[in-house]
Amino acid sequence: MNTITYTPIGIIHSPHKTTEGVPIQPSGAKGIKGSVVVDEKYADALADLEGFSHIVLLYHFHLSEGFSLKVKPFLDDSKHGLFATRAPKRPNAIGISVVKLISIEGCTLQIENVDIADGTPLLDIKPYVPDFDSAEEIKIGWLEGKTNKSLKKKSDNRFGL
Amino acid sequence: MNTITYTPIGIIHSPHKTTEGVPIQPSGAKGIKGSVVVDEKYADALADLEGFSHIVLLYHFHLSEGFSLKVKPFLDDSKHGLFATRAPKRPNAIGISVVKLISIEGCTLQIENVDIADGTPLLDIKPYVPDFDSAEEIKIGWLEGKTNKSLKKKSDNRFGL
Repeated sequence: MNTITYTPIGIIHSPHKTTEGVPIQPSGAKGIKGSVVVDEKYADALADLEGFSHIVLLYHFHLSEGFSLKVKPFLDDSKHGLFATRAPKRPNAIGISVVKLISIEGCTLQIENVDIADGTPLLDIKPYVPDFDSAEEIKIGWLEGKTNKSLKKKSDNRFGL
Repeated sequence: MNTITYTPIGIIHSPHKTTEGVPIQPSGAKGIKGSVVVDEKYADALADLEGFSHIVLLYHFHLSEGFSLKVKPFLDDSKHGLFATRAPKRPNAIGISVVKLISIEGCTLQIENVDIADGTPLLDIKPYVPDFDSAEEIKIGWLEGKTNKSLKKKSDNRFGL
């Protein structure tokens, strides 16, 4: 299939300097602060974003290379199909995080609940809207009963370089 | 900044053949069926996905070209900063939809609540997990009081080619 090329629109900064010890989801990163510096040419595209309490960040897992079709994720001891996990090593290594938006000054966004490594290239920002982004009558397969572990669990080096 | 290149992992099929008349969000596409055909080389990566009732599809808005920094979205009559909207014409035209997963047979996923145009290149599949993908104490800025319109609103041609 044809390839698709994207150019980052900014950079995400956080206290997580390596792939080890990163909270594995925003729910495990409560209160951890970071920032997003958007390229100045997109300044006008940030208008009205400040009205939203939460935003969806799409980014490239720049510290991940390669992938396996089956992986042992942080929250389980057995292997699962890669697409049934949120592991960062993927055919197209795109990450999603719903983070809290604290403030915007110029092209810098202060954010909270940051489970993203420092220096991550940002691909897109979307407003988080529950009516669009959530669902009802949900089943979560192998993750059933395991997600609260993500509150404490930090990454080890398995998906790093 | 350095460019990032992705190769689609599959194709999304839906009844929406053009950019006009597409439901603007999954919440407005209730019951609309579609399918995802994943490249056979990723078959093993689909293991255990069927336990999830909902999945997050990341895809490339292949019918969108170019973008404006301020846009008049389908749900409002005034212009807003692009990143405060979900308009498909974006610097990196990546779309996200939370859809219902009905079944998986081989590399074909039957899905429901499909707000995606037919033939859309698929970039990634992630399990939808409320603890990871949702937030609390939410404010939705200019969209306040407008999201229920998305139940009926269909796209017109403004973000098409």
